Amino acid sequence: MATSEYDAHIAVTQTAPGDFAADLDAGWVVGGGVNGGYLLATLGNAIRATVPDKPDPLSISGYYLSASVPGPARVTTEVKRDGGSVATVAAELWQGDQTKITALATYGDLAGLPAGVETTAEEPDLPPRDRCVPNTMAPEEVQRLAPMMERFEMLFHPEHVGWAVGQPSGKGVISAWFRLKDGREPDPISLLTVVDLLPPVTFDLGRPGWAPTLELTAHVRAKPAEGWLKVRHATRNVAGGMFEEDCEIWDSAGRLVAQSRQLARLPRG
Amino acid sequence: MATSEYDAHIAVTQTAPGDFAADLDAGWVVGGGVNGGYLLATLGNAIRATVPDKPDPLSISGYYLSASVPGPARVTTEVKRDGGSVATVAAELWQGDQTKITALATYGDLAGLPAGVETTAEEPDLPPRDRCVPNTMAPEEVQRLAPMMERFEMLFHPEHVGWAVGQPSGKGVISAWFRLKDGREPDPISLLTVVDLLPPVTFDLGRPGWAPTLELTAHVRAKPAEGWLKVRHATRNVAGGMFEEDCEIWDSAGRLVAQSRQLARLPRG
Repeated sequence: MATSEYDAHIAVTQTAPGDFAADLDAGWVVGGGVNGGYLLATLGNAIRATVPDKPDPLSISGYYLSASVPGPARVTTEVKRDGGSVATVAAELWQGDQTKITALATYGDLAGLPAGVETTAEEPDLPPRDRCVPNTMAPEEVQRLAPMMERFEMLFHPEHVGWAVGQPSGKGVISAWFRLKDGREPDPISLLTVVDLLPPVTFDLGRPGWAPTLELTAHVRAKPAEGWLKVRHATRNVAGGMFEEDCEIWDSAGRLVAQSRQLARLPRG
Repeated sequence: MATSEYDAHIAVTQTAPGDFAADLDAGWVVGGGVNGGYLLATLGNAIRATVPDKPDPLSISGYYLSASVPGPARVTTEVKRDGGSVATVAAELWQGDQTKITALATYGDLAGLPAGVETTAEEPDLPPRDRCVPNTMAPEEVQRLAPMMERFEMLFHPEHVGWAVGQPSGKGVISAWFRLKDGREPDPISLLTVVDLLPPVTFDLGRPGWAPTLELTAHVRAKPAEGWLKVRHATRNVAGGMFEEDCEIWDSAGRLVAQSRQLARLPRG
């Protein structure tokens, strides 16, 4: 069975109990480092291997200490508690003798949760895909800044790409259709990547540039159905040189499958 | 100088590098354990003592492993990175040989951040305090469940207390004025308590009962001004036996000073 590009990129190999080798792929470079969502899924993959009977991230919090670079990396995991229906695990991503990310996560089995849904959040109102703006039309300097854009298809809401032509809406919202490029279907691990793939929502505020993440917490609330995802970024509190960025991911069945919030630094300039 | 009740309750005493003794006060009991926000501030106090030149929590994520009880506790801290303007620290709260909470936090100096504020979030629309409903009017069974209500004044928006008389609004929103009882002014550490003090927002959905927190992340975005705080809880995704609860805290100067999100289990029944 062929392995998708994405699964090959987030693969980890156990070298000892709680110790894994990874190879960060240059295909996920964006701005000054490797994409934080790709790194989170790589960590998430090692955590899954650490507590295999609790296969799904329910909550994961990554604290980003410094930028990662393509190439070899090490992931260490330590079980903090494994009992009942959930396990909590600490994990770290290392390159050389530097910790790049330190994380905590609680894993469980999404398939074992009660079925009831009383969600009041509203699905992003995205036009049909053929009326959206593909990321392949991004300005050349954005493409150069983000080679990772070749890893997926991203079709932007036409009202949320004014920044690409110098006319940001100023609302602080970006939404898009999303799928991985080689047709790899979404799953709870890939959602950890998807929460951090859209351009920083600050683009829509007229502040282009890289926005380093200090902290990102993602909650995965259900296994995503197959097909295209809808992804929405928004911010409501830009202050003190930082902003919060909330991400929602909705699956093709119209379910809110993941929510994340990150605290990031405003781009300079 | 007299120490406020609150400062006495969250006090920690260093016993060795990265090792602190605390005494969890019975006054913070709610439902089946000690309030998670009080515990987070106790952890936060030990982290502050660990990196004294970075006095303020910018982000803290607590993973709640099991309920704490009043009495002696131990807090351990480990610096993950301390460089530039921020420090990231792991911390754990122990009772006996059990880890009760494992946490990560990034601390810095809120006074040193740029002044710019472009927040689009809107301040909770609370009626004047003399038209709100004080927590002292809570039903007797709620007071019995939550002795911690004697630690503070909480004046609810009259439209958000229908649950107290069997008429929850069903909207999933609760907001209130707040201050600590003995006049202790808010600061970045006390905000870590305040994000988890209102009744679970599920009360407003007609689901009374204790809602155990799995994970809570708080971002402190500015030092709060003196005076009353406005606190707002909301949920938009009740599904799979869990819900997310977002909290906002606004200070008396009308600034959004803290945002938190927690993932909690729905009350049983």
